[in-house]
Amino acid sequence: MGLSVVIVALWVLSTSVVRGGKVLVFPQDGSHWINMKVIIEELHSRGHSVSVVRPSDSWYIKGTSLHYKSITVDVPGGADEEFFRSFVSRQIQIQREGKSAWTRLSLDMELKDRFSEMHRKVCEMVIHMFGDKELMESIRETQYDLVLTDPANGGGVMLAHYLKVPLVFNVRWTVHGEAHFAIAPSPLSYVPFPIAELTDEMGFSQRVRNVFAYVFRQHLYRRAVGPPYSALVSRYFGPGVDYFSLFQAADLWLMRVDFVFEFPRPTMPNVIYMGGFQCRPAKPLPRQLEEFVQSSGQHGVIVMSLGTLVGQLPRDVADEIAFSFAQLPQKVIWRYKGDRPTALGNNTLLVDWLPQNDLLGHPKTRLFVSHGGTNGIFEAIYHSIPMVGVPLVFDQHDNLSRMKAKGAATVVDIATLDRNIFSRALTEVLHEPSYKMNMQRLSELHRDVPMKPLDSALFWIEFVMRHKGAAHLRTESYRMPWYSYHSVDVMAFLLTVVLILLLATFVIVRWLLFRMCCRPKMKHD
Amino acid sequence: MGLSVVIVALWVLSTSVVRGGKVLVFPQDGSHWINMKVIIEELHSRGHSVSVVRPSDSWYIKGTSLHYKSITVDVPGGADEEFFRSFVSRQIQIQREGKSAWTRLSLDMELKDRFSEMHRKVCEMVIHMFGDKELMESIRETQYDLVLTDPANGGGVMLAHYLKVPLVFNVRWTVHGEAHFAIAPSPLSYVPFPIAELTDEMGFSQRVRNVFAYVFRQHLYRRAVGPPYSALVSRYFGPGVDYFSLFQAADLWLMRVDFVFEFPRPTMPNVIYMGGFQCRPAKPLPRQLEEFVQSSGQHGVIVMSLGTLVGQLPRDVADEIAFSFAQLPQKVIWRYKGDRPTALGNNTLLVDWLPQNDLLGHPKTRLFVSHGGTNGIFEAIYHSIPMVGVPLVFDQHDNLSRMKAKGAATVVDIATLDRNIFSRALTEVLHEPSYKMNMQRLSELHRDVPMKPLDSALFWIEFVMRHKGAAHLRTESYRMPWYSYHSVDVMAFLLTVVLILLLATFVIVRWLLFRMCCRPKMKHD
Repeated sequence: MGLSVVIVALWVLSTSVVRGGKVLVFPQDGSHWINMKVIIEELHSRGHSVSVVRPSDSWYIKGTSLHYKSITVDVPGGADEEFFRSFVSRQIQIQREGKSAWTRLSLDMELKDRFSEMHRKVCEMVIHMFGDKELMESIRETQYDLVLTDPANGGGVMLAHYLKVPLVFNVRWTVHGEAHFAIAPSPLSYVPFPIAELTDEMGFSQRVRNVFAYVFRQHLYRRAVGPPYSALVSRYFGPGVDYFSLFQAADLWLMRVDFVFEFPRPTMPNVIYMGGFQCRPAKPLPRQLEEFVQSSGQHGVIVMSLGTLVGQLPRDVADEIAFSFAQLPQKVIWRYKGDRPTALGNNTLLVDWLPQNDLLGHPKTRLFVSHGGTNGIFEAIYHSIPMVGVPLVFDQHDNLSRMKAKGAATVVDIATLDRNIFSRALTEVLHEPSYKMNMQRLSELHRDVPMKPLDSALFWIEFVMRHKGAAHLRTESYRMPWYSYHSVDVMAFLLTVVLILLLATFVIVRWLLFRMCCRPKMKHD
Repeated sequence: MGLSVVIVALWVLSTSVVRGGKVLVFPQDGSHWINMKVIIEELHSRGHSVSVVRPSDSWYIKGTSLHYKSITVDVPGGADEEFFRSFVSRQIQIQREGKSAWTRLSLDMELKDRFSEMHRKVCEMVIHMFGDKELMESIRETQYDLVLTDPANGGGVMLAHYLKVPLVFNVRWTVHGEAHFAIAPSPLSYVPFPIAELTDEMGFSQRVRNVFAYVFRQHLYRRAVGPPYSALVSRYFGPGVDYFSLFQAADLWLMRVDFVFEFPRPTMPNVIYMGGFQCRPAKPLPRQLEEFVQSSGQHGVIVMSLGTLVGQLPRDVADEIAFSFAQLPQKVIWRYKGDRPTALGNNTLLVDWLPQNDLLGHPKTRLFVSHGGTNGIFEAIYHSIPMVGVPLVFDQHDNLSRMKAKGAATVVDIATLDRNIFSRALTEVLHEPSYKMNMQRLSELHRDVPMKPLDSALFWIEFVMRHKGAAHLRTESYRMPWYSYHSVDVMAFLLTVVLILLLATFVIVRWLLFRMCCRPKMKHD
């Protein structure tokens, strides 16, 4: 494997003609930034210069970095971590306490408002930038080769269109929902709409659910998020421009999924799959952690983390989990910032932070207890560690349902989680060999590619630099009106022709019949 | 570039775990075999052993070879070169002489019969094989890793299903028409159906034509070719098996196109694009030919070939072409087996055969006059030589219309070809720089890939060997009944629900109105 890595590195080096490209990044603040950073660092290490647009109060996107120059816009638009943290903990509470649908809905509305607010701020950033003649002049003068953006917000799309430079997405979700649904034909009979927790094999009622999920979600996204961007588009690009089309005009979609995770589905030629691009072989653990891991002996280690947004859990949940862990012969490393659960066993180490990729890549690791964020799932796949999922919010239920469908995870509902249920889940994945075997198979498939995902992403970014876009891979069909795209006009035309022919036939036949039947009659008369 | 080649070679070597795989090939006899041979030779050179099923009278597929072991089936099923040669020459004649639609149709029917005959023979080969207990036993014992086939006939599909081994296609056309249309969603609003000579940007009337082309051609293919294979399927695999599904169950589609040639369109994850896989840097020319080429000086050389099926042309056409060539300062190398045209200039060399790839890759070559076969087009793209197309039969018109749409070729109609028209076409492509520039751009895009097409094809064939298939890339949606696939049942259900609700509302409203309006009336009474 070592040889391969060197060879890929050499090969990439030898083919990348563009040296010192210039990339303008409009990221999505918050946890999405972690993904963008990986690509920025790689761009930097290959000799490209990167500028990152950031709101003045961003906690994630630092103002100074070795890897990029920052363009700080004096608008407070940073991700509201506090809100999201509280949102998740209130969600857990609601689920645990079986609160009324009304409470759930009102929390959902609060989330929707917060998203709208976020998009409003992004729009303000864009307006602020476009209004700053000096800034825009200096950006123009830099002559960026492309805009790289996470289209979970629309800022980068506006910027690229304004500057008339190629547009590259680092994407899983767009402003309008899952990225595939914005670009590739997605027959709802076998392409599950995300969040619906469906697979590519659906019965009748599941297909009905899928259609509902699609119609309502897409509608909601467009209604909730569309207006501010539409206003921006008509303000700067004139009334004839459709803001959804600007999205679809992207040259390249670097998609953060892979077909060991995504179900097979139609795709477009300008979609490059780079799921797992952040995974890498494990580095050695810090000494103390390594000692703890080694002390597990033949039983091995369980790693648990519910993501950066979940520092703590309701006291009773934490106790049930701690109790379950305490019954096991394995050692457990649990990222947990709350009060020490009373039932905590000697085998369980609580930590504030853990080197997740290195731990999952450790030969002693047996099991990963996870909330089901995409990054964690890909690390588990890469290192072939089966999972117990405890999904909490957003796309986590859906992500984990996919791993469950592939037989590589079991899923526990936070609403009903207790020591019995949790212990049963842990024991099942630890002792039923199919989980490990399935994860192993996914891992082998995932790793067996002509080019590693990060190298592939970089190859195609540099491709866009070299050729000033990738128009030959992009369909322009999004410019068609919907009735032409779906051939409604052609069908209506053909139907009309058929009807006219039928009518004509009917009239002629009637006339002929009339002549045949009535003439003799007249004679008789 | 040299370094890259070495590096790719090394990289491929380091990743291919399977050594000595066993591949069973069921090819399509005739010119398609040329494509299959390239892959077989590469498989052989990588240490895999290949067996090729061939009819006893095949002229193309030799019984003995260094690169494969042959399994000769004692059924005469070889490609009928004589018929195709005469077919093409009669086609040309019909077009030149403006014969009646009736003559054209009767020739088309003759072709259709010949195709049906070909498929009948393939079916006979399959029956013969399945009936030969000893042969099938020895094939089973060999434990092939996969069946590689050109699905322009259905033999390999039957064989793979019978042996229950993974199935890999080397494909552009299937028994049912263009390969994409068999597997990927193809919205007829922007995906041109082949043979219709349309692009991805169609006006209303073109979209109507596209729908017609699709409906009639697909129907024709299925009606003309379906029955013998259906009979075979129900004979060997029972009545519950649909022979079209067996096609769609292929693990991998190695597609002989590329998006510099194909318009951007939806595709499936198990389609690997390998268009141009047979192209390679030019080798030095034979001494005499090199001298002739060098004698062209600054004017350079024109290469003309109308493919293996067209050895000669009607006398008048050959004369007009020869006359046009004679007027040019360029030297011309023309593959032509007919009588020496009277108007032939000193600058034109007639040859029986020419090393096409090496000539197109020669720095002196300026222009390629071609019938528009896919192989020739890819060689022209690879070496960036603009084209004058003289399409004759089959998909040649369509192929060339694509190159024309991309501004890399001009097309001459054989029906009206004379010295003026042909000279104008030559002069235009020689002197209008956009043709060369467009071809150059296509060439750069085509060559700028992470992995060369042939290496990519081999990687994925070996992938199927390593993992015993590629199920995670293949949708199983083809197993659904058509009304489920197209969500007709869901839509009907939802429509019914809406109608019932409307009806219920109507009934209730009527009842309420009745109560409101009539009671007072009754009081008045």
